[in-house]
Amino acid sequence: MALKTLRELGERGLIERILRLITPLPSNPLPPWEDASALELHGDLVALLKTDMLIWSTDVPPGMRPRDVGWKTVVMNFSDLAAKGVRPLAFLASLGLPADTQLEVVEELTRGIDEASRHYDAYFLGGDTNEASEITVAGVAFGVGKRERLMRRSGAKPGDILAATGLFGDTAASFKILLEGYEAPGDLRRRLLRAVYHPEARVREGVALAERGVVTASIDSSDGLAMSLHDLSRSSGVGFRVEHLPITEEAMRFAELHGIDPWKLALYGGEEYELVFTVRPENLEEARETLREVGCSLIEIGVATRDRRLIYIDGGMEKSIGGGWEHFKSRPPPAPQAA
Amino acid sequence: MALKTLRELGERGLIERILRLITPLPSNPLPPWEDASALELHGDLVALLKTDMLIWSTDVPPGMRPRDVGWKTVVMNFSDLAAKGVRPLAFLASLGLPADTQLEVVEELTRGIDEASRHYDAYFLGGDTNEASEITVAGVAFGVGKRERLMRRSGAKPGDILAATGLFGDTAASFKILLEGYEAPGDLRRRLLRAVYHPEARVREGVALAERGVVTASIDSSDGLAMSLHDLSRSSGVGFRVEHLPITEEAMRFAELHGIDPWKLALYGGEEYELVFTVRPENLEEARETLREVGCSLIEIGVATRDRRLIYIDGGMEKSIGGGWEHFKSRPPPAPQAA
Repeated sequence: MALKTLRELGERGLIERILRLITPLPSNPLPPWEDASALELHGDLVALLKTDMLIWSTDVPPGMRPRDVGWKTVVMNFSDLAAKGVRPLAFLASLGLPADTQLEVVEELTRGIDEASRHYDAYFLGGDTNEASEITVAGVAFGVGKRERLMRRSGAKPGDILAATGLFGDTAASFKILLEGYEAPGDLRRRLLRAVYHPEARVREGVALAERGVVTASIDSSDGLAMSLHDLSRSSGVGFRVEHLPITEEAMRFAELHGIDPWKLALYGGEEYELVFTVRPENLEEARETLREVGCSLIEIGVATRDRRLIYIDGGMEKSIGGGWEHFKSRPPPAPQAA
Repeated sequence: MALKTLRELGERGLIERILRLITPLPSNPLPPWEDASALELHGDLVALLKTDMLIWSTDVPPGMRPRDVGWKTVVMNFSDLAAKGVRPLAFLASLGLPADTQLEVVEELTRGIDEASRHYDAYFLGGDTNEASEITVAGVAFGVGKRERLMRRSGAKPGDILAATGLFGDTAASFKILLEGYEAPGDLRRRLLRAVYHPEARVREGVALAERGVVTASIDSSDGLAMSLHDLSRSSGVGFRVEHLPITEEAMRFAELHGIDPWKLALYGGEEYELVFTVRPENLEEARETLREVGCSLIEIGVATRDRRLIYIDGGMEKSIGGGWEHFKSRPPPAPQAA
C-alpha cells in the first residue's frame, strides 16, 4: 500500500494526525494548535508562545524587499498573540541562510525584524543562524497574559455578532497582480500591494478587546476570512451568516476593473492580519467603543447561527462559503525573484 | 565593490553584524546571543527562550531516522537552557515540509519530539506546519528560572577549574564514519553513532549546578569543545589550559585504529551536548557532589588562566586550540540519504 503524502492529506489533515501523537499538557490554558500555545506561569499569569516560519520559495512574493520580509515575520507571529488578546513582549528568530547570501540581505532582514518588534513595543532578543538551501525565517513570539482574559476560538454562541477589525480583499487582489499578471493603475496597485509588503498586526486591538472581556471567540485571518470562519465554526460549534461584504474600496475597484466576484477577494485572500471575532449583541457597542479608543473601527459583518452552515448573502441569495488557503493541497505561488 | 557573502564572513562575523542592528532590551538578564534569551517576568523570575533550527540537508547525517531527528531538535534547544541552569517547561516546533513528504515521516518526527520533551519533563505544545523545499524543524524551548541563579558565559576567573559533564570525541569519530567512509568494528561503530543519532541534553545537571550556585561560567558544547572554550574565553576574558584529554574510551579506540590525533576528535567534534563550565577550586568538591547526586561524573579537564591563550598539553608540549565548527565558512557535510 502506498504511503500517504502531505499533498493528499492537506495541512488540516496533517495537524489532526500530529495532535493524536502529542502528550497533552495537563490543565492547558489553550487547546493545542490554537493560534498560539499557552502555559501556566505564576498566579493567574500564562505564557503565550507562537512560532511560525516564513520560507522564501513559498511565502515571499516577487518584489518584496528583505526588510519587509523581516517585518512580516514579526507580524505573522504577533498577530496570533493579538488574536488571543495577549501583548507580545519578545521576538526571536532562527535564520536559515544559504552560504552565498549577501550580508546586506541579512542586515535588511534584521532591520525589518527589529523595526516591527519595536513598533509593537516588544524587543527582538536574537536567535540563531543556520546554513540552509533557501532563506528561511522561523519566528517566535512570546507574551504574558491573564488566564481568564485569554480569547479563544471556541465560545461563539448563536446570535452573537460576527465582526472584524478591518476589511478584506487587498491581499487577494495583490496576489492576482503579483502572481497571475493582473494589472491595476499605479496608485491602486501601490495601495493594494502595501497590504502584502507591509501588513499590520492588530496587537493594540486584540489586547484592548481582551481587557474589556467583551469577545466570545477570536481568531486572526491569516489563512483568509473563509478559513477563519471555518475554524471559529468548528471550535465554537456554530455557523455563520455573513451579511455585509467586508471588502476594501481598493479591492472593490480592482474587482470591478477585472470583472471578478468581489466576494472571492474578500473571503479567500489569506495573509491578512485582521482579527475576526464574535460579541454578544448587548456588548456590541462596548466592543465598538473599545476599538475606537485604540483608533480602529469595528466592522460588523454578520451573525453566528445555530445551524452550522457558513453562508454569505449575495444580492439576496444565500451562497456557501468554501475553504481557504491550505498548505500542501493548494497550488503554491511561483518561485519569487532573487533578493 | 562586490557585496560580502556569508561564506566570506562566517557565522561569528554575521552575528556581530546582526547584533549591531538590534535595539537592546533594557535591563537584559542575559546579553544578546548567549546560549538562550532571557526576559524579566515577575519578581525575580525570568523567562528563558531558545530557538534553533534543524535543516535536513545540512544537519541530518546518513542513516538518521526521522524519530531521532525529532528527538535531536528538542535536545539541541533544551541543551542551551540547561547551560544557563534553567529547566525547560515547553517545546514548540515550526515544521517546514515538502508536499511530497510521507505522512509517516512527519508522524515519526512528532513522536521523537514528544518523546524527548517528556523525557526532560516538558511538554510539546505544538507549533505550525509550512510548505518548504526541504524538511526543516525550527524548535523553540521555553523555561522559567531565577534571575540570580542564571549561569552565564562570562564569570570565569583565572585559577577557576575547567570541567565538563562528560567526555568528547564520539561525534567527531561518528562523522568520520558517516561522512568520510572511515570504518570501525560493529560494536564500536554502534556505540559511536549513538552519540549522533540519540544525543542527551544535560538538563538535570545544569539545573542542579545552577541551584547550588557553584558555577562561575557555563556553555554547552554544541559547536565542539574548542569553540565552547573560545566562547567562554571571549565572554569571561580568561584563557584556558586543558591539561587532561577529555575523550571517551570509544573515540580513543577509534583514533588508535586509524592513527588519528585523539585531541582533534575531542576538541573539534560539535553536536555534543555536554556542559562546559568553570568553578572556583574551593567549590570543586561541592560541584562534583552536586553532579553525582543527579547521576553524572564531573570531568576535570583544565584551568582558567590570566593569559588569554587557549592551549592543551599533549605529551608535555603546549599546543594551541584553534576554532571549531562554523556555519557558512566550514565545509558542509554531504547531502544525506532520503528519509
